[in-house]
Amino acid sequence: MPLDRGKVFTHIDKNLPQHIAKLQELVRQPSISPENKGVRDCASLILSYLTGLGAKASLEETSGNPVVYGNYDAGADKTIVVYMMYDTMPVDEPGWRVDPLAGTLTDVPPFGRCLVARGAFNTKGELRGFLNACESIKATRQKIPVNLLFVVEGEEELGSRHLPEFISKHEKELQGAKAVFFPFCSQDRTGKVVMYLGVKGIVFFELELDGATWGKGPKEFGIHGSNKAWVDSPVWRMIQALATMTGPDGNKVTIQDFYRHAQVPNKEDRELLPKLEKTFNDAAVREEMKVDRFIGDSHGIEALKKYLFEPTLNINGIASGYTGPETKTLLPHKITVKMDVRLVPNMRRTT
Amino acid sequence: MPLDRGKVFTHIDKNLPQHIAKLQELVRQPSISPENKGVRDCASLILSYLTGLGAKASLEETSGNPVVYGNYDAGADKTIVVYMMYDTMPVDEPGWRVDPLAGTLTDVPPFGRCLVARGAFNTKGELRGFLNACESIKATRQKIPVNLLFVVEGEEELGSRHLPEFISKHEKELQGAKAVFFPFCSQDRTGKVVMYLGVKGIVFFELELDGATWGKGPKEFGIHGSNKAWVDSPVWRMIQALATMTGPDGNKVTIQDFYRHAQVPNKEDRELLPKLEKTFNDAAVREEMKVDRFIGDSHGIEALKKYLFEPTLNINGIASGYTGPETKTLLPHKITVKMDVRLVPNMRRTT
Repeated sequence: MPLDRGKVFTHIDKNLPQHIAKLQELVRQPSISPENKGVRDCASLILSYLTGLGAKASLEETSGNPVVYGNYDAGADKTIVVYMMYDTMPVDEPGWRVDPLAGTLTDVPPFGRCLVARGAFNTKGELRGFLNACESIKATRQKIPVNLLFVVEGEEELGSRHLPEFISKHEKELQGAKAVFFPFCSQDRTGKVVMYLGVKGIVFFELELDGATWGKGPKEFGIHGSNKAWVDSPVWRMIQALATMTGPDGNKVTIQDFYRHAQVPNKEDRELLPKLEKTFNDAAVREEMKVDRFIGDSHGIEALKKYLFEPTLNINGIASGYTGPETKTLLPHKITVKMDVRLVPNMRRTT
Repeated sequence: MPLDRGKVFTHIDKNLPQHIAKLQELVRQPSISPENKGVRDCASLILSYLTGLGAKASLEETSGNPVVYGNYDAGADKTIVVYMMYDTMPVDEPGWRVDPLAGTLTDVPPFGRCLVARGAFNTKGELRGFLNACESIKATRQKIPVNLLFVVEGEEELGSRHLPEFISKHEKELQGAKAVFFPFCSQDRTGKVVMYLGVKGIVFFELELDGATWGKGPKEFGIHGSNKAWVDSPVWRMIQALATMTGPDGNKVTIQDFYRHAQVPNKEDRELLPKLEKTFNDAAVREEMKVDRFIGDSHGIEALKKYLFEPTLNINGIASGYTGPETKTLLPHKITVKMDVRLVPNMRRTT
């Protein structure tokens, strides 16, 4: 018997406060993997959700954060893997109008009443929303139409560094699935559904230079700035090194062979681009990011091509010396730069 | 009657605990001008020292921190200005073995028992040491041999930005003095007295770039790092701009006309350099700073020439994006760079 979605939607509408309360419960539980804050408690909470749904579930340990693994047998023919992540980014950005871990419902014009919290998007909201939907199907005494193999990881924001450990242990079960589904919201600010194409890889790394490693400049601590006259500066050296990596606009990467193996859009990609463009309102995307223009004032397909197919070299953060109020004359001994490369197909770390 | 210095030294030796206690009292009073911490309380403390010595003293207000001004009339023919500073740098460096504001006496091999504190050197230690000496002269019922005009400022670490206000008000009195004395320690780690030559000026400034000012890149907040493919990066742009300011080693300044008007060592300077070299143990200076080599492996006169006569462009601090533990993929909207130029004679801000 096919699923009666009308019944499910009615159930959701009637039980909205309870559904929202569950979203709030999850976003209130910190799980900030870059700061190792609340991560294991959140894993336990997710475990209780999966067992509550009726899945056979467990915490699968890795060398890092545990993966919550759950098998929901709906008695169906087909099985899909539901990939989820329970960790979030830090909450240190300025500009929060609400406590990012309070699970606050607040009016956000022009959208109306919204849940504003770290993880409300990307992706605790989507995770709990999917489970709410599963529970609603069961509450209307219907069957979930596929078996679900939940893989809920706690290191997505760290680059999923220990997920391969889990996968190699459970490869056989996972290979029995027909597809992988990652619940993720994809609307622009006008409410329009946005479709993208393809996935990039990431290599995250830090460049650090200090006088001890370099053999020039201060080795152990910052010294008085007047010494720049006779002492080399690791900061200046790093800036000169970084500057060789891009063109003057900071966009074209000038590292040797960086683009050499990168796959360019193939025939199928090029055919799909005009279809994708129909789902894409570039003004809405830029408004959301508070960005006046894309690189080179590109629009439509030209912009999508950059976003989907170009590898990048990005500086996520840079820190050296005294950065507090007013002045402190200092020749710093160390500089640290957090960088990432987004990889497109055929790029390899060894190229 | 000439001053009997033997009597003074004997008095100091006999009263060492009291002398040290006075040093401790002063370094325990915070006066961190870059953070505006304890500055005015410290000015009041200095005022009490000057009136305690018998000077006619007052707090002279400026648009910033007050100058403590004191006139000690010794009944002598000559007057000298004693320039002092009562403010210090922040205490945020790592590696403190003692609380920097606790005024701790501790063993520091190979030097023995030392007062280790923010301001113990540069220059609360020297300030209080000078006053201890003055008090010791009086305690031995002798006369201080010159009249003292104390000018004790609280913004040295901010570039003495409001000192000109004070000077223009008191120009006439100050011009009556025969010389200016700045009590300052000048020994290397072997105990050898070090003499330097000349004084540089400083211009301190911040370079800040954000997407709103630039017209490209994120305007209001950092966005997800994956957007680097289609959004310009203020951080990369700043790095490219900075890189144009020096040669690849970060030492030679390539800004147009930077060196054009800078005065090179004159005949008298060149005659003095060999004399200065006799007071200069370059290995000891480098050991103290934990620096293996001076720029270009220079030594002796060659190194002194750089230190004394070369203008510099230094980066005191740089900050952008996420700099906490682990990773956060971010395309930052803003970067801030704290820089200073050390000026030699004939350089002007307008050149």
